[in-house]
Amino acid sequence: MVEQTRARRDSYTVDSLLAVTVRVFNDRGYDGTSMEDLSKAAGISKSSIYHHVRGKEELLRLAVGRALDGLFAILDETAASEGPAVARLEHVIRRMTEVLIAELPYVTLLLRVRGNTRTEQWALARRREFDHRVAEIVAAAEKDGDLRPDIEPRLATRLLFGMVNSLVEWYRPDKDGDPAQVIDALTHLAFDGLRAHAPRG
Amino acid sequence: MVEQTRARRDSYTVDSLLAVTVRVFNDRGYDGTSMEDLSKAAGISKSSIYHHVRGKEELLRLAVGRALDGLFAILDETAASEGPAVARLEHVIRRMTEVLIAELPYVTLLLRVRGNTRTEQWALARRREFDHRVAEIVAAAEKDGDLRPDIEPRLATRLLFGMVNSLVEWYRPDKDGDPAQVIDALTHLAFDGLRAHAPRG
Repeated sequence: MVEQTRARRDSYTVDSLLAVTVRVFNDRGYDGTSMEDLSKAAGISKSSIYHHVRGKEELLRLAVGRALDGLFAILDETAASEGPAVARLEHVIRRMTEVLIAELPYVTLLLRVRGNTRTEQWALARRREFDHRVAEIVAAAEKDGDLRPDIEPRLATRLLFGMVNSLVEWYRPDKDGDPAQVIDALTHLAFDGLRAHAPRG
Repeated sequence: MVEQTRARRDSYTVDSLLAVTVRVFNDRGYDGTSMEDLSKAAGISKSSIYHHVRGKEELLRLAVGRALDGLFAILDETAASEGPAVARLEHVIRRMTEVLIAELPYVTLLLRVRGNTRTEQWALARRREFDHRVAEIVAAAEKDGDLRPDIEPRLATRLLFGMVNSLVEWYRPDKDGDPAQVIDALTHLAFDGLRAHAPRG
């Protein structure tokens, strides 16, 4: 019981530190953030931070790792790994939008990673791997004849990701209301388009 | 003849200075760029730069102004102002994608503007005005019954803009080939969706 309480307390501290860190990284940029900035924003001493992590780069790794874990977990879901590729793709796009909204600051940080530290390079490589995994599903759905043949799979993937990822630029949970409405709208637009076809009536 | 030559030379200098400026602003961020950086990147003295513009903020205004002029000009085109709203919308989305590709560094800079200078505030206000003008066409097309009624016009506009604007994140003219293919793909995806409907063959 003592062990459990202690574990929970420690985990709470790392999680709340991470929440503050992500906010500061998103505001000032990773390069523009010092341990001093993090210490001030978190209201704890630098040595308290160093008690939990080795430094700024480890905080970045934990933060983007949270976003990446959320995204990669989607690919292991049954609906993403069994059945026709077009249905798997629709599931993945829907769930990506969900994860992006649920983990908004973490995915925002992930999508802004640009730099040359090992952690940033690792995050970029993982993002490319995720893109590649989804592009394979797009290609399979197109091969099945379930997607328009006139949009090249790699380009379709980029346009889909472009639309999903753009949410970090404009979606604000307090103003843009019900996530379910956004998720439905995005999925319908992506797969069936905006136009009101006669049969859809 | 002398006047003409001189006018051409002066205009060439401002344009080429602007091309260098936009590249540096996009690399380092507007705030992170000094007149010294611009002077080095352009290979001309600071006083030569001040011969043409009052300073960094005027360069920003000229650069984002170029992007905004390109976008607003679309709305004055006949195909954007006459005929059914759904056709006007399709024209606008297609032409936005064209302008974005043709003026890639300038639109990239425009989309990254965030700050508090008067010029940045002006650029943000003009962007909002453009978004609003397009949202009006979306609303009109939905009222005509030509767009799906289950996607709220403001949300549809944001998703469309998200997909178009995402091009600044991934489109590279040397690698991503024919702009026409990208423009067609984006327009088809946006209006008719990725799914291969039976009637479409």
